[in-house]
Amino acid sequence: MIKLNTFIEHTLLKQDASKQEVQQFLDEAIKHQFLGVCIHPCYVELAKKYLKNSAIKIVTVVGFPLGANLPEVKAFEAQKAIENGADEIDMVINVSNIKNKNWDAIIEDIETVKKACADKPLKVILETDLLTSDEIEKASILCVEAKANFVKTSTGFVKNGIGAKVEDVALISKIVKPYGLKVKASGGIKDKQKALDLISAGADRIGTSSGVVIMNS
Amino acid sequence: MIKLNTFIEHTLLKQDASKQEVQQFLDEAIKHQFLGVCIHPCYVELAKKYLKNSAIKIVTVVGFPLGANLPEVKAFEAQKAIENGADEIDMVINVSNIKNKNWDAIIEDIETVKKACADKPLKVILETDLLTSDEIEKASILCVEAKANFVKTSTGFVKNGIGAKVEDVALISKIVKPYGLKVKASGGIKDKQKALDLISAGADRIGTSSGVVIMNS
Repeated sequence: MIKLNTFIEHTLLKQDASKQEVQQFLDEAIKHQFLGVCIHPCYVELAKKYLKNSAIKIVTVVGFPLGANLPEVKAFEAQKAIENGADEIDMVINVSNIKNKNWDAIIEDIETVKKACADKPLKVILETDLLTSDEIEKASILCVEAKANFVKTSTGFVKNGIGAKVEDVALISKIVKPYGLKVKASGGIKDKQKALDLISAGADRIGTSSGVVIMNS
Repeated sequence: MIKLNTFIEHTLLKQDASKQEVQQFLDEAIKHQFLGVCIHPCYVELAKKYLKNSAIKIVTVVGFPLGANLPEVKAFEAQKAIENGADEIDMVINVSNIKNKNWDAIIEDIETVKKACADKPLKVILETDLLTSDEIEKASILCVEAKANFVKTSTGFVKNGIGAKVEDVALISKIVKPYGLKVKASGGIKDKQKALDLISAGADRIGTSSGVVIMNS
């Protein structure tokens, strides 16, 4: 019997979330004992204080959601987030670098942020909605080379995007798991069955803003 | 007779724009002699080289499009962009700070980035789709207090957002123009009439990815 809460990163990445909404969201994380919460950098400090007596991981995002920032800016954002209490960093890949087949730039981007993360796990968001299967495969290999800790599917912010797909999670898992990397499925995960399907396909983490719905169903 | 090209910031903020697409886009800017180009930080260096013999301004975005980053991260992003050749910086306000009525934090956010911009103009994107009229009014006053150079309406990235509205541009203009700030209308500007209406309402700049269509109509 899978304990779904131990897979879930309870996620609130609304641009206009108020402090009150964030506190209610953190209460939900405590109630359901989710593995982690995923929030914007501006709320990391609040979450750290609020969750100080819990084991819930504080996850935040850098270069989010477009990833079209300079590597050193993503790294600086990661460093500041960790100083404020973040336990894990989810960075967005530069999708243009993929389209330009500039593999060296992809590696440099990930390695620069990884260095800033030191011993904190780094997840690399591929934004699978914008990539072909070949590009997902290549990007996954680059994540292995650059020593990321997780490959993550999606930001949830692509217009008309689907988000985490079972076949993408299976493909990424096949490539990265032999090297010890883990997989986070995220984007469009709105019900329990979808979460279970993604876990069956290899997901170690489920990033979702529907965590409470999933737990109550 | 309005010379529309002198109002337009030709905009390409697609997450997966290739180098080839960006070069074609810069060629369009040269052909139509747009006032500026608005691109992601990762393409500023390329644009600077490509446009070195022109007067076209290089505009880039920081904390884009969600604005939920730390002020010092936005400032660092602005600094690096300027080092790479950016002439103007468009930052996104932290909308949560508006919702939390944390006016001091809004001021601090803008002032921190402004300091990094030194003598380069700073535009502050309010993301009007997410604000009430009262909030737009208050945010505009804070932009004056924090000595921003422009108030800009929208990122163009809000889900189901409308973007620049004539009434919002009129409201912002009424508040900020007496203090010497300018107004950039952006988001959802797809045709010439809309551009002209926004200019009539007070817009000094038109941010649009439909610049070529507008010029050819």
